[in-house]
Amino acid sequence: MSGIDFLDESSALDRDPDRLIRDVKSSELYLRRKVPVGVLGATGGVGQKLVELLARHPWMEVTCIAASEKSQGIPYKEAVTWRELSPIPEHTAKMQVRAPTPDLPCKIVFSALDSSIAGDVEKAFSEKGYVVISCAKNHRMDENVPMLVPEINMDQLEILKTQKFPNGGMLITKPNCSVIGLCLALRPLQLEFGLEAVHVVTMQSISGAGFPGVPSMSVLDNVIPYIADEEERIERETPKVLGSFQNGKIVFSDMKISAQCTRVPVNEGHLEAVSVKLKNPCKPEDIIRAWREFSPPCVELDLFSSPNPIITYFEENDYPQPKLHKNLQKGMGTAVGRVKKDPILDYKFFVLSNNMVRGAAGGAILTAELLIKQGLVFW
Amino acid sequence: MSGIDFLDESSALDRDPDRLIRDVKSSELYLRRKVPVGVLGATGGVGQKLVELLARHPWMEVTCIAASEKSQGIPYKEAVTWRELSPIPEHTAKMQVRAPTPDLPCKIVFSALDSSIAGDVEKAFSEKGYVVISCAKNHRMDENVPMLVPEINMDQLEILKTQKFPNGGMLITKPNCSVIGLCLALRPLQLEFGLEAVHVVTMQSISGAGFPGVPSMSVLDNVIPYIADEEERIERETPKVLGSFQNGKIVFSDMKISAQCTRVPVNEGHLEAVSVKLKNPCKPEDIIRAWREFSPPCVELDLFSSPNPIITYFEENDYPQPKLHKNLQKGMGTAVGRVKKDPILDYKFFVLSNNMVRGAAGGAILTAELLIKQGLVFW
Amino acid sequence: MSGIDFLDESSALDRDPDRLIRDVKSSELYLRRKVPVGVLGATGGVGQKLVELLARHPWMEVTCIAASEKSQGIPYKEAVTWRELSPIPEHTAKMQVRAPTPDLPCKIVFSALDSSIAGDVEKAFSEKGYVVISCAKNHRMDENVPMLVPEINMDQLEILKTQKFPNGGMLITKPNCSVIGLCLALRPLQLEFGLEAVHVVTMQSISGAGFPGVPSMSVLDNVIPYIADEEERIERETPKVLGSFQNGKIVFSDMKISAQCTRVPVNEGHLEAVSVKLKNPCKPEDIIRAWREFSPPCVELDLFSSPNPIITYFEENDYPQPKLHKNLQKGMGTAVGRVKKDPILDYKFFVLSNNMVRGAAGGAILTAELLIKQGLVFW
Amino acid sequence: MSGIDFLDESSALDRDPDRLIRDVKSSELYLRRKVPVGVLGATGGVGQKLVELLARHPWMEVTCIAASEKSQGIPYKEAVTWRELSPIPEHTAKMQVRAPTPDLPCKIVFSALDSSIAGDVEKAFSEKGYVVISCAKNHRMDENVPMLVPEINMDQLEILKTQKFPNGGMLITKPNCSVIGLCLALRPLQLEFGLEAVHVVTMQSISGAGFPGVPSMSVLDNVIPYIADEEERIERETPKVLGSFQNGKIVFSDMKISAQCTRVPVNEGHLEAVSVKLKNPCKPEDIIRAWREFSPPCVELDLFSSPNPIITYFEENDYPQPKLHKNLQKGMGTAVGRVKKDPILDYKFFVLSNNMVRGAAGGAILTAELLIKQGLVFW
Repeated sequence: MSGIDFLDESSALDRDPDRLIRDVKSSELYLRRKVPVGVLGATGGVGQKLVELLARHPWMEVTCIAASEKSQGIPYKEAVTWRELSPIPEHTAKMQVRAPTPDLPCKIVFSALDSSIAGDVEKAFSEKGYVVISCAKNHRMDENVPMLVPEINMDQLEILKTQKFPNGGMLITKPNCSVIGLCLALRPLQLEFGLEAVHVVTMQSISGAGFPGVPSMSVLDNVIPYIADEEERIERETPKVLGSFQNGKIVFSDMKISAQCTRVPVNEGHLEAVSVKLKNPCKPEDIIRAWREFSPPCVELDLFSSPNPIITYFEENDYPQPKLHKNLQKGMGTAVGRVKKDPILDYKFFVLSNNMVRGAAGGAILTAELLIKQGLVFW
Repeated sequence: MSGIDFLDESSALDRDPDRLIRDVKSSELYLRRKVPVGVLGATGGVGQKLVELLARHPWMEVTCIAASEKSQGIPYKEAVTWRELSPIPEHTAKMQVRAPTPDLPCKIVFSALDSSIAGDVEKAFSEKGYVVISCAKNHRMDENVPMLVPEINMDQLEILKTQKFPNGGMLITKPNCSVIGLCLALRPLQLEFGLEAVHVVTMQSISGAGFPGVPSMSVLDNVIPYIADEEERIERETPKVLGSFQNGKIVFSDMKISAQCTRVPVNEGHLEAVSVKLKNPCKPEDIIRAWREFSPPCVELDLFSSPNPIITYFEENDYPQPKLHKNLQKGMGTAVGRVKKDPILDYKFFVLSNNMVRGAAGGAILTAELLIKQGLVFW
Repeated sequence: MSGIDFLDESSALDRDPDRLIRDVKSSELYLRRKVPVGVLGATGGVGQKLVELLARHPWMEVTCIAASEKSQGIPYKEAVTWRELSPIPEHTAKMQVRAPTPDLPCKIVFSALDSSIAGDVEKAFSEKGYVVISCAKNHRMDENVPMLVPEINMDQLEILKTQKFPNGGMLITKPNCSVIGLCLALRPLQLEFGLEAVHVVTMQSISGAGFPGVPSMSVLDNVIPYIADEEERIERETPKVLGSFQNGKIVFSDMKISAQCTRVPVNEGHLEAVSVKLKNPCKPEDIIRAWREFSPPCVELDLFSSPNPIITYFEENDYPQPKLHKNLQKGMGTAVGRVKKDPILDYKFFVLSNNMVRGAAGGAILTAELLIKQGLVFW
Repeated sequence: MSGIDFLDESSALDRDPDRLIRDVKSSELYLRRKVPVGVLGATGGVGQKLVELLARHPWMEVTCIAASEKSQGIPYKEAVTWRELSPIPEHTAKMQVRAPTPDLPCKIVFSALDSSIAGDVEKAFSEKGYVVISCAKNHRMDENVPMLVPEINMDQLEILKTQKFPNGGMLITKPNCSVIGLCLALRPLQLEFGLEAVHVVTMQSISGAGFPGVPSMSVLDNVIPYIADEEERIERETPKVLGSFQNGKIVFSDMKISAQCTRVPVNEGHLEAVSVKLKNPCKPEDIIRAWREFSPPCVELDLFSSPNPIITYFEENDYPQPKLHKNLQKGMGTAVGRVKKDPILDYKFFVLSNNMVRGAAGGAILTAELLIKQGLVFW
């Protein structure tokens, strides 16, 4: 059991034995067997999206699914109210839904559990040697837990060394759905010009609230200027995502950040109006160039779900839009547009990111791909 | 013929002969005859709202309506596709639609004309002695034309002295629909703490684009991060609305302002996410108090359409909302909520204002009421 | 204490002592005191609408409100998430919410309770002498319980004689929200031409499902071709509503009826596509005339909430519409349009009725007004 | 140049020389060259969908595009406001938009022209030897023009013999978007039980009206019970689609049909509530079986865009839904559900069909595939 190079012998993977990233030896093994993965909370919105995206994944295969008590013991097909456009994957449809206890036949566990139980359950799995990739908020701010966006902060994987779970167990989180698109759009600016302050107003889609989630009576013909704890989450998580690994710990970015969040009658895709103050001066075309040329180290790993390009800047005067760009790069792309001078801070622009794919299931899967590619998953 | 006090002998109207505001002599006259008014562009959305709001107005009566060529010469009822919830007012329904030429039998002219023709037509009416109150953008930034919101800048009426139209003719504008609610929420803060910078992201309803306006294909299940010239308008008009009359001219406010505008699938009501930097420090409760105690001079004039209170601060954690507050104070109120410390500027909050009533027809009518009450309309 | 004639001495009320409708003696009493009424289930959507409509009612006053356990013991204002456009009535806002037990200080009880408990609770109130007017489905099909629409089947009040509750207690229901508008449109046709078959496809608004009701994820950008038990309810209730009182019991109409029900992303107002087969031949203009001239006996009672006209036929080729006509006659009117020959049955047309007002709260209040006017409520 | 068998030597194609369907000789040719096709009206909604669906088509390639005057002479990319989710196909993006005159370098012409000009233009192309497949309504009811749905009425191709256009020119139409899904659901019932009467109420999506099409002010939070000429089209076209080729002409089905049409705030997918009277008695399970076993002759042709299964019957009690099933079988499938006894006619059910794919662009392409496979296109 070991990590693996899916590319070829000359791949640019870092092989420094002092780093957590391991050498690659046994690609033959991979060719025989995909990584067995489990989905916790498989009946919810994010859980369904995980099941759908994993259905034809070349590196992983769903070997078990778990959900809350009322779904346990019956086939997934009967337990779930499937709402994805593509039909429920046959293979998973027949699986018996199990309890989310750490005795599942898999190595990686994707957790789309409700935060009311996610904290303890995820820990229990890690302690039994599972690789836990969580979409829940519970452990995001834990000191030795990375909050990973592969294109941004792959270096946070180093913190895993301090986790000390047995048997290769680990616990990894991804940021909140509204944070991921924001941070992807900010990262090139941070790298090139430095970020002093970020002001964001979000217009978030209803799928972000799960199911049943937002009552139609509340949101049809309306905008709700409030999402519980969301502004706090953005202000809390963004500096960690954009932070760096230094001296054995994750050091947060020192930028100021302010968020106002709203819910809009849109099915999928979070639109965000962003203003930034930069540390170094630049022109609008520099900003656009920074986005277009953004090519972080993870690009060379050629991860299966990686969007290409990572960021798409649109010239059209009324782009990006949830309706038109939610499926950009199969939902993994980040759309940016309307960059303009900001009379108060420096620049303003709009970001669009798919909250269900890039912001949740797809983001978690991309993280798993990174772990596999880096040889951190043993199975 | 002269101005008029609709209240009683002891009214608190300013009678200083040096001010443009005139003494009040002939309330009897008023009791005999309402001010005859005309509506230009009566078939459009704002035009319909004007016709509806004026239908039972105690001080004014619609004596003529005008619209573009294809509607001329037929009864209003046949020319208009009525979209108001209340039935088309009978009196107006039967009126023949006329051309928008300055020979209409009225004294005040409300212009809801398209900006492609509003500029010249409005000027022509003023030059023939009509009191023109315009909802169009054409003359808003003209040096000697007030951009009036009675609760904010009644002093701009002084500039009328410099207009020099014959026979009591004058030309008055109101700000863009997205500017009015914003400025009403800002005014108490400006007065109490001083405004250094204002950052606003708007979520504007489709009625703001008129009819047919926004195609349903464009906006259903979507947010469009662009409204032509809207950001520029907000950045341009706000400093004038919040400016003051000094030494014979309107001096703009020196605050910085930045706007990002979006169109959301909401029928009526513009929601705005606002952040402000103030000149003097204050606590959140001071902000709320400033809104609640806002009582500008025009309140004493007891204008018929004046909301009371002018600004309503809501404690609920998810207010204000277009759906719930668009009819606040019959659509003339300004709803504010969610005031919070802003980590970059000083404070942030949300404003909701009805773009069709407060932001257009109702705002224009309130201005007319101010003129009448101040004795500036002779009929 | 007795019934009352709110009109004048020469009112056309039926005074036949053999009928349940009683003579009117003590209008003085009424002038002193409105009928005290209670609202059960006051925090739900229909409950709120009842509270709002009763706030300024000239004949009744809300003296108590009741709701489920979690709301009991706190002021109504705190227990309710108010969603009406007009502010919560001050008088009611302060009332302590009570348990729905038959010891409330009122005479009439409006029940907007959930059907899971409405059945027993309503019965308990009737047995204690309360006049119960129910919006719930539980007792609608009971043999000795009228399902009342005042303009249609006032004669069903006769069945009350058989109820035998003490102290003037009685139990009255109104039909399902989707049935009321349908039956109001059908009634003139039944009277003039006879009904042989009715085929209806409904497009029902989300408010009909209460709150939280339909998840936004389910209905935004969608139509759901199913509402639990709704088709059965329409097929079951319509013949009773259109039935007649004969030989001491309610005899159902013998027409055939078929319903297909859908939920559409509309806030208020149920639209229905109806086809009818009539017993006697007629022309389209006869149908329209029947609607326009519809003037059932209850019109002479001049009930406070009665719409006038009861049915409005629109000539416009794309009317009626939920958005434009939901507030027709303050939400009590029935809008009809697009009558056309049906190649299979005889005629087809569209009906629009406000499900929250006419179809629920307003309909129940109209029934109460009928009872009061007929002298059936003693207080 | 000749027809072609894409399958293999043993294909079940009919080779009777007396039928229009020709023998297959030169599959080598096909391997060298795809059929060159042009799209007329390429900038509209259906035109875009055609361009998108044809982008990677294995049998056809877009060699030219045409549109109205204002788009001519500039690259397609600049002429079109692309609204498809997938990016504009590169190959087509660069093409110069041409005038819709019969000198285009292609053999098949897909017409998505506006009906104001489609009639003459399509005829002109046919007369110059082009194979015209029209999405416009102009020639649908022409006596010698087939209105083709390959799964239903392949035999109507016989009427082409009577067209007498030179050089293999022909003119073929497809039915209106609301007719196709309806007829596909009806066809198995017609074949097995006979159709006596069909009653349909449609809930049609806004994309059916093109762009800009339905104003958002008209349809947001609303249902509009009218689509110009749509009921007439359904009642007129359905009997022709379900008709048969007899004695050299298309004989219409003799069933009765009644339609009521509405526009709902849904982006894509027409939902229809259908009631049918059958000639022969059957049970609900017979109906379902008829749908599930529906396997018309065209299935054996293995057309590239053919859905499989053609009709999907859903057991779920609230299916089919536009949101969930618009992409069924890549938008070419027909979804049916909720079959129930109808107390007036015999059975009722719901049908869902994608109006842009199956109902327009995809339907036209499927017809082209049929022509190619049958050897009717020479290039």
